[in-house]
Amino acid sequence: MRQPLVRRASDKTLMDFAHLLADDASKATLAHFRKAIDVANKDSGGYDPVTEGDRAAERAMVRRITRSHPDHGVLGEEFGSRNETAALRWVLDPIDGTRAFIMGQPLWGTLIGLLEGDQPVLGLMSQPFTEERFWGTSAGAFWRRGTAPARRLKTRTGGKLADAILTATTPDMFTSADFAAFNRVGAAARMTRFGGDCYNYCLLAAGFIDVVAETGLKPYDIVALIPIIEKAGGVVTTWDGKPATSGGRIVACGDKRVHDEVLKLLARG
Amino acid sequence: MRQPLVRRASDKTLMDFAHLLADDASKATLAHFRKAIDVANKDSGGYDPVTEGDRAAERAMVRRITRSHPDHGVLGEEFGSRNETAALRWVLDPIDGTRAFIMGQPLWGTLIGLLEGDQPVLGLMSQPFTEERFWGTSAGAFWRRGTAPARRLKTRTGGKLADAILTATTPDMFTSADFAAFNRVGAAARMTRFGGDCYNYCLLAAGFIDVVAETGLKPYDIVALIPIIEKAGGVVTTWDGKPATSGGRIVACGDKRVHDEVLKLLARG
Repeated sequence: MRQPLVRRASDKTLMDFAHLLADDASKATLAHFRKAIDVANKDSGGYDPVTEGDRAAERAMVRRITRSHPDHGVLGEEFGSRNETAALRWVLDPIDGTRAFIMGQPLWGTLIGLLEGDQPVLGLMSQPFTEERFWGTSAGAFWRRGTAPARRLKTRTGGKLADAILTATTPDMFTSADFAAFNRVGAAARMTRFGGDCYNYCLLAAGFIDVVAETGLKPYDIVALIPIIEKAGGVVTTWDGKPATSGGRIVACGDKRVHDEVLKLLARG
Repeated sequence: MRQPLVRRASDKTLMDFAHLLADDASKATLAHFRKAIDVANKDSGGYDPVTEGDRAAERAMVRRITRSHPDHGVLGEEFGSRNETAALRWVLDPIDGTRAFIMGQPLWGTLIGLLEGDQPVLGLMSQPFTEERFWGTSAGAFWRRGTAPARRLKTRTGGKLADAILTATTPDMFTSADFAAFNRVGAAARMTRFGGDCYNYCLLAAGFIDVVAETGLKPYDIVALIPIIEKAGGVVTTWDGKPATSGGRIVACGDKRVHDEVLKLLARG
């Protein structure tokens, strides 16, 4: 049974705290982004920028959480979970998009979500190289770059699937049956594009991508993104239309009707 | 016959001029990047951010060239070529990666190359959202971000194909025979990743990507990238090992031996 909440900080306080976590993570990840690994180093099992960045960022975030909110739980990618029965649990992925990170593409991000029970109450994606933050909370979904004022995010709505831009991180992520399902959506859409990781879900929230359909996601790959997508007006579920919180096969759409149509195409066959 | 060169500016002067062209293009493209098109607007054939950005950027660059160097030629994506027999010809692609541009991903770039006869003498890729410039000239290959000092680019060398990261912009670009050839390289490489456009060739020059293999490129898609890749220590040719200047099926590698191996895999079958 979950621990009762003694005192629950306001959503604004928690969101401000999430930005502090992202600040910690940014320092740790950027220290390793676009740092060359020479072959000798790699062969000797030495410096691996992703692993180093991942671990350092998660360690920094967990340190801040345990110091400021010892009653909160953590579900992290690198070090597993702690205080699992807490009423509020942070769900952390220090580097979502490790392959983009390795290649030097600025499409990876640090994902910071907060679950209250099983409900995501806020989510933040931080891309420190472009200095972008995308976040969603009860106040809405927002985007900010550097020190510029935040702008409200809104998905693109009212369009047809035939006009839609469909994306997924990579064709490799699908089983052949799931790829056939993905391609049924692709055949009905205007354009299909691979590459993007968490950045694509944020661009969907911002109204530039219409559908993201992926498989094999872990909770820490998606929990933080749910409030961003939903508060921007989008819909995100599993391919079966169930809550996305547990990960698995995930489909996000900017428009509710397009989402209904996409679910049917994914299910058929 | 080509016009004789009356006076040839130094490579440094020409490279500085290329940066001015990129400044012009940045203003024009960023004015249209991540600007929403609503459905009504789109249906009425109204505002199209890519087309508007493309045209405005090329117009601005051509204006500067004709004003400062009336004796130079231009080969542009949008408005075709002018002064074709000039000894020095600018090869311009205002937005390479129009699909990335539409989706809001910062992987597109403005490409500015300069041919002397049929030889690329300098090339510049400008990504104005990330404020990155990658360029190659007789002085070497360089990267700069914002106002920070330029750093020298160097490809990753000495590795094996089995350790290589292979990329292409999209599987859609290949015929089925060419895709089979691409996949032979993919099967021998460590990892294959789609998405990236001109940005991937620059990340190859920077030592983070090992192989880019693509098809259907136009001269303005590749001319500007050749000096960046070569001056960083890489090799770029057609799949048949011929000069890349005319576009077509292009393969770039950070390492000369890997390039030899990749050419064999692309040819077999």
